[in-house]
Amino acid sequence: MLDLSLPTGLRDMLPDHSAHLAELTGKLHRVFGSFGYRRVLLPTLERLEVVERGLSPAALAGVLKFVEPGSGEVVAIRPDITPQIARLYAARPDALPAPARLCYDGPVLRAREARAGRPREVVQVGVELLGLGGSRADAEALVVLSRALARVGLSHAVIEVGHARFAPEVVAAARLPAKAQAEAALALLRKDEGALADLARHGRGSQAARQAMPELATLYGEEALPRARRIARAIPGAAAALREVESALRLARRRGVGAVAIDLGEARDLGYYTGITFAGHAPGAGASVAAGGRYDGLLARFGRADPAIGFAIDLEFATQALERKGAAPRTRRRR
Amino acid sequence: MLDLSLPTGLRDMLPDHSAHLAELTGKLHRVFGSFGYRRVLLPTLERLEVVERGLSPAALAGVLKFVEPGSGEVVAIRPDITPQIARLYAARPDALPAPARLCYDGPVLRAREARAGRPREVVQVGVELLGLGGSRADAEALVVLSRALARVGLSHAVIEVGHARFAPEVVAAARLPAKAQAEAALALLRKDEGALADLARHGRGSQAARQAMPELATLYGEEALPRARRIARAIPGAAAALREVESALRLARRRGVGAVAIDLGEARDLGYYTGITFAGHAPGAGASVAAGGRYDGLLARFGRADPAIGFAIDLEFATQALERKGAAPRTRRRR
Repeated sequence: MLDLSLPTGLRDMLPDHSAHLAELTGKLHRVFGSFGYRRVLLPTLERLEVVERGLSPAALAGVLKFVEPGSGEVVAIRPDITPQIARLYAARPDALPAPARLCYDGPVLRAREARAGRPREVVQVGVELLGLGGSRADAEALVVLSRALARVGLSHAVIEVGHARFAPEVVAAARLPAKAQAEAALALLRKDEGALADLARHGRGSQAARQAMPELATLYGEEALPRARRIARAIPGAAAALREVESALRLARRRGVGAVAIDLGEARDLGYYTGITFAGHAPGAGASVAAGGRYDGLLARFGRADPAIGFAIDLEFATQALERKGAAPRTRRRR
Repeated sequence: MLDLSLPTGLRDMLPDHSAHLAELTGKLHRVFGSFGYRRVLLPTLERLEVVERGLSPAALAGVLKFVEPGSGEVVAIRPDITPQIARLYAARPDALPAPARLCYDGPVLRAREARAGRPREVVQVGVELLGLGGSRADAEALVVLSRALARVGLSHAVIEVGHARFAPEVVAAARLPAKAQAEAALALLRKDEGALADLARHGRGSQAARQAMPELATLYGEEALPRARRIARAIPGAAAALREVESALRLARRRGVGAVAIDLGEARDLGYYTGITFAGHAPGAGASVAAGGRYDGLLARFGRADPAIGFAIDLEFATQALERKGAAPRTRRRR
């Protein structure tokens, strides 16, 4: 008998669930379109060199790559669509003058589960605003995300905003030895307050910075903003990052974005964020239903040194959150 | 400078073109849904063993395969969605009782161009009617295809109907030596009348069959049906195939399908068709805009011995045909 199983970690989506994902995708594109974002459709494979240029070493460990028969080129199955969009934008200034508002949907695939419970293949639906920097563009991304979540029934989701440089500036000001610095980055990803406190003891930087380090693990929730302001007073880099977050939030609130919170200890390992970062959290989802941020360095790596910001919605987690709310058909899925 | 090119033979779809493809996909799913077909979403990769079970050796030569790091499994990027659906249907009788009407859309990828001018990666949108045999189901497939083509603006497309067994039965009745038989299959794919006439001379079968062989290359168009009937008179297997074609056409015409024609010399190399086959042809498209047929043997290879029929629409060629008609934005695309 033939073994009918799928490759490890992959699954089929049965009719009800698939219809629901397709419906969500359609709704999201209509919201994106109403803000002037235009769809692009990009290939499943990229040359590995292009993917490497777009991701951090940690993210690259999960990339599926192989040599193409015939051409002998080393290619990768896309693990993320943002670096693809960056490559397209850099390659086609003729067709995509700045600012370019692009959106997409499609599966991305990884060699192994990045986190427990995370499927290897997920459908991402997202937007990128390319060639526009500053707080207005930051706020636009938050507004589009907020409207998109509301449109699919996730208006109860909270958008948590952080900044790619806030925590690193604090750690840099604490002046840790190189090894401790790498450990601090990992401790931040885990939000491990104890480890951050231990590592801070090895710092030769200001006492303010060393005291602030463990605080990064809990720099979210109601009291986060005044605490972040206090930390930023002694660390100019952190203060600059915080100003960007506050400007974006102010403009976004003026445009009607309600449910926003702050998480300035938030750390990502994609390797391309440079400014505000944000994630959409909804009760019932196994992880954030959306994630994004500003990546002003990425386009330069592809030869077109423009600022950019974008986000992707993870349809799987969005559906989990909707099922918890009772707004999606609850279906058994085969892994 | 980083080389921003894509892997050989792949391309990006820019905004206007992508929006058009997405719109066509949505329209097609609405037609399929109106006939009771339900969407499934299947993974990018399958185990190679599953793909091998579904395709002919010729089609397998174009499959992209590699060993997965970690699990060591040999996997393939799907070159076709029909064998995936067959695998799903066989694996999930609980969720998919017969008859199951399923539809899908997604990219399929091949190692090299199967035909000149054919891109390596195409988006297929299609339906499968599983667990239902006979002329009524054949006619349903023709009706759904006809409505789908009309819905996207290709009502001028002609559906050419053939049968996977008609030409092979004629060749079998001509009793060629083994080598000539293999050559005849290739000559049929090329519709090479001269080669078929030469090969027929080596046959030891009936004179009727040997005379019919070169005719297979031209068994399409207005006069094809009476000529096919004449050929079938002396070859019972061909007569049985022709009866299936005529029944399906009669029922489909009764349900309003107008633009159908016959092509009984049509040969495919996918390796799973057993009954009627059909293709949608529209002026301006580089190749057929749709193709499908009955595959009553494929599901048994996966352990659920049910009949089935289905087709896929090639969005790229459909768009070419619409552009020629002036109904789609004409965009330059980068290869």
